[in-house]
Amino acid sequence: MIDEKGILFILSGPSGVGKGTVRKRLFEKATDLQYSISMTTRDRRPGEEDGVDYFYKSKEEFEQLIEENELLEYAKYVNNYYGTPRKYVEETLAKGYDVFLEIEVQGAMQVKKNFPEGVFIFLFPPSLEELKNRILGRGTESNDLVLNRLKEARKEIEMMDAYDYVVVNDQVDHAVSKIESIIQSEHLKRERIAKQYKKILEDDQL
Amino acid sequence: MIDEKGILFILSGPSGVGKGTVRKRLFEKATDLQYSISMTTRDRRPGEEDGVDYFYKSKEEFEQLIEENELLEYAKYVNNYYGTPRKYVEETLAKGYDVFLEIEVQGAMQVKKNFPEGVFIFLFPPSLEELKNRILGRGTESNDLVLNRLKEARKEIEMMDAYDYVVVNDQVDHAVSKIESIIQSEHLKRERIAKQYKKILEDDQL
Repeated sequence: MIDEKGILFILSGPSGVGKGTVRKRLFEKATDLQYSISMTTRDRRPGEEDGVDYFYKSKEEFEQLIEENELLEYAKYVNNYYGTPRKYVEETLAKGYDVFLEIEVQGAMQVKKNFPEGVFIFLFPPSLEELKNRILGRGTESNDLVLNRLKEARKEIEMMDAYDYVVVNDQVDHAVSKIESIIQSEHLKRERIAKQYKKILEDDQL
Repeated sequence: MIDEKGILFILSGPSGVGKGTVRKRLFEKATDLQYSISMTTRDRRPGEEDGVDYFYKSKEEFEQLIEENELLEYAKYVNNYYGTPRKYVEETLAKGYDVFLEIEVQGAMQVKKNFPEGVFIFLFPPSLEELKNRILGRGTESNDLVLNRLKEARKEIEMMDAYDYVVVNDQVDHAVSKIESIIQSEHLKRERIAKQYKKILEDDQL
């Protein structure tokens, strides 16, 4: 009945909260969702496919795309760029598919700036105690490094204000079912669909 | 973890769209939801209980409450008042229960004015053709009356703009499951819960 564009959903949250696990479980269930394919300048590895695992670009191409604001977010790790290409996201949305992006808080803030119409979901730790234990328990780092990580996590949680929804990751299945509700109900928002309904009203002689 | 107030959900839509059926099915499943108890000046019938079926008031008491803006909406049918008491709704929300109100479009617009923080759900007919047939098929009314009803339905649909969500009543179970998603995801909205999360952050020495 309704010819609707897809929605970009962004799942983010502090390191250690379990974003990857939640995203994987969600994709086992939500088969219509498209995963956002990243762009990178790192070498293609055997078995990887361009446009499936990553979009592979040269450093020069990538920097050109940065300049043209063709990346919703990007970062540099170990001398290689990684980012989210705007074009792939927009083309997928235009086909009517939702796109799902799981990303660190810093990247999510870049996406927010470049694509504010996205739906931003913040994954919250079951308790701060548990997040603290995870950060402390990671290894045998120096006290300074641990303190830095704790401060970082605190800052990341304070960025919650930029998000539309907050989901507690107390149990993966609960978190996934809440995200599914968000995906469904976002498609029911009047502001997204009223135009199409109005068109039906115009076309029809009620 | 989170000590949260309930949310007022308002289900409305044009006459003949099937609001009552959807509401009944929802209440068979959603046991935590509280139905909004109406207030009336009509006589209590045998077997009815004050504060369960209705809140029973005299005409004078009801008019006093109208003046004090203690009704979220009200209307007069066959010389009796019917309305939604603000106090019952607010007390139930304060206890942490969601309140669900199924109501005609005119009443929903009154609630919107008196309680804008409610979540307004518009039930849309599966097709305008079907709504038309239902209105036409009701009986042997005069052409003028039928034309009036069609105009009324059209106006009611145009009021969709005041709502937060639009749900198509193509199948009762689909509509109910969509409304359940809306109820769940509204509780996940950052603006509703960020304050409590922030408090956790302050209380805790992360």
